[in-house]
Amino acid sequence: MTSVVEICERAAAAAPQVARLSGRSKDAALSMMADALHEAAPALMEANDADVEAARAAGTGDTILDRLTLTEKRLTSMAEGLRAVAAQPDPVGEITEGWKRPNGLTIEKVRVPLGVIAVIYEARPNVTADVAGLCLKSGNACVLRGSSMALRSNRAIVSVLTEAGRAGGIPVDAVQLIPDADRSSAVELMQAKGLVDLIVPRGGKALIDTIQEHATVPFIIDGDGNCHVYVDRSADLDMATRIVLNAKTQRPSVCNAAETLLVHQEVADKWLPEALSSLAGAGVEVRGDATVRALWPQANEATDEDWATEYLDLTIAVKVVDSIDAAIQHVNRWGTSNAEAIVTADLSAARRFTAEVDSGSIFVNASTRFSDGGEFGYGAEIGISTQKLHARGPMGLRELTTTKYVVWGEGQTRP
Amino acid sequence: MTSVVEICERAAAAAPQVARLSGRSKDAALSMMADALHEAAPALMEANDADVEAARAAGTGDTILDRLTLTEKRLTSMAEGLRAVAAQPDPVGEITEGWKRPNGLTIEKVRVPLGVIAVIYEARPNVTADVAGLCLKSGNACVLRGSSMALRSNRAIVSVLTEAGRAGGIPVDAVQLIPDADRSSAVELMQAKGLVDLIVPRGGKALIDTIQEHATVPFIIDGDGNCHVYVDRSADLDMATRIVLNAKTQRPSVCNAAETLLVHQEVADKWLPEALSSLAGAGVEVRGDATVRALWPQANEATDEDWATEYLDLTIAVKVVDSIDAAIQHVNRWGTSNAEAIVTADLSAARRFTAEVDSGSIFVNASTRFSDGGEFGYGAEIGISTQKLHARGPMGLRELTTTKYVVWGEGQTRP
Repeated sequence: MTSVVEICERAAAAAPQVARLSGRSKDAALSMMADALHEAAPALMEANDADVEAARAAGTGDTILDRLTLTEKRLTSMAEGLRAVAAQPDPVGEITEGWKRPNGLTIEKVRVPLGVIAVIYEARPNVTADVAGLCLKSGNACVLRGSSMALRSNRAIVSVLTEAGRAGGIPVDAVQLIPDADRSSAVELMQAKGLVDLIVPRGGKALIDTIQEHATVPFIIDGDGNCHVYVDRSADLDMATRIVLNAKTQRPSVCNAAETLLVHQEVADKWLPEALSSLAGAGVEVRGDATVRALWPQANEATDEDWATEYLDLTIAVKVVDSIDAAIQHVNRWGTSNAEAIVTADLSAARRFTAEVDSGSIFVNASTRFSDGGEFGYGAEIGISTQKLHARGPMGLRELTTTKYVVWGEGQTRP
Repeated sequence: MTSVVEICERAAAAAPQVARLSGRSKDAALSMMADALHEAAPALMEANDADVEAARAAGTGDTILDRLTLTEKRLTSMAEGLRAVAAQPDPVGEITEGWKRPNGLTIEKVRVPLGVIAVIYEARPNVTADVAGLCLKSGNACVLRGSSMALRSNRAIVSVLTEAGRAGGIPVDAVQLIPDADRSSAVELMQAKGLVDLIVPRGGKALIDTIQEHATVPFIIDGDGNCHVYVDRSADLDMATRIVLNAKTQRPSVCNAAETLLVHQEVADKWLPEALSSLAGAGVEVRGDATVRALWPQANEATDEDWATEYLDLTIAVKVVDSIDAAIQHVNRWGTSNAEAIVTADLSAARRFTAEVDSGSIFVNASTRFSDGGEFGYGAEIGISTQKLHARGPMGLRELTTTKYVVWGEGQTRP
């Protein structure tokens, strides 16, 4: 079997060719890849069926089985994702800034690909196509390391993509899958320094810990989402109910779902009992501080552990705060810098919350569930960065690039 | 003595206050700091004299003594640096991108400070003022860890800056110096995770190795500069001589000085003997490949080790290449992604070299010595990044910031 290092070496060798592809070639190839996914639907479904069957036989839970399963709708959405990525402007070659110095030197800051991007991800075969599309469009080669549970599906998808890409002039080594998905292959990948330029770990705490302990390759953390919704005293309360319900229940298992609700004391009496009943009606377990429990006795008790927890489930922690300052402090203390929302009609409150909350995305009168590359208009998503360096929040094509300075002179020397 | 962690905690507590300072307050404070450096010149010189005397008594070499010494000219240039930084546009609050989604959400990408920036640097007291100025202007608190050799000078400078800043409304903990400069304080600093948002190590290989082994805080490597000058067959040969002499000899001890000269074979016969004689005349030792030694027998032999070496001294490695492809390959194999130059009159050669050389800064018909924050117009410099993530090349104010997304809605929820 080809080793992880060999795969990375091939990717590194292919990277300069991928970097030089014209936008037109890349877009044509992405479109051919989208067509090929449609055409290969029966074969892809068959490979996926085998994965799903094996996972079910191994006693895998329903949530994971659901993520693993390729449906016709999901295949269509993978193909649409590739077309949406093709429709984005080419980030490569963009001159992001440029100026002329007093000595006549013209300085350009030019966007260029990173080189080789590696992504470690969970059992979601659609990610395979998303990552391949984003990396190709941004001029990078990619090395994919999916879950062993999805290996047949991923192999089939990568094979369809590379065959279609080859016909469109894309080097075959531009998109490669690591064929064995045990822990050691992940560690080898995160230590392929000098071959891999960026690794994005998509997964739980164990993976993040492994990266932080073992990686020698630069990485971007796609971390926890302990997201907050703060209902200000000036909030439109019907809007607040809709946003909280959406942020908590529309898809509770993902990182941009809300985990804590903060309510200004001036609207707590009037709004909370009804809002919490609505949440409970949607199957949500409510854990509240003493004030919350006094207003709505069905609530369980919330402790500091609840403020710190990303439930990823139908549970919400609720706290009444006496001011927007207390709300901001709570978010900055317990949040994970992913996504937070304020519901307010007060401009000054909106401006303070957006300025003072330290997070990747801050929503005014909108659900945290919009913290997502697709929803931001990036076509697809490589992940959501919860760190501050290089990228923060949903990552699109630009986040997969670096820059170089190109300086034009006429013989200037430094005095 | 205050511990490193306590210093970092104070910085972290001050950071949100620094982040909220108006551009006007920051610029006024920087101007007061510049004035204060002038006024305190006698006290600063006295502190510096003590450092220099102790270093000389300890047998410190001339190059380091020179860097350590504060002259009136250097003090003036420190003050001018602060004023130049004040004259830059405020990076904080800049909306770098913004767009509206089909569902009516307005997305803004807003530049915000990183928080706390730590810099570890060598015995150059001027860096103290440069770093403090850049961090303040970019809305960050900073923790400075200079060389023990410059401790008295750094203490005096920080004290002058913080006193002037205090008068201008800057929190005193916005600029702090670590009072003991042994190795353990550096390691403590690079492990102050959750308190320090970015650490920039300015120093040699030992420091970089320590960072890569021990840092838990995110870092940006200000690494080696094995810089190249390539003289193309179409070069204006007089210009080539001027640029090579400048890049090699104007200040050989710094990272943007040239270390290797590549010459196209078509101009080697005509140009090399004269150019190498000029370099030798400026005190440079020439090490060449066989072709070079045949053309100019005074050259010593160059081996692979020479292609890999950053001499930081009056030595240059010289190689004759048979094509621009060979030149690009050589730079990409041996370079350290700092700064490279091509001397050419041929547009196609210039476009190929700038596109295909993988480096932080690429100069066409100009000296590599311009790879510098001040020369780029950034007022001062926090360092030159030789990595690809977050920042690449000379770092100015923007590189000391991150972004957050601010999204404005009217009650949007995700369907």
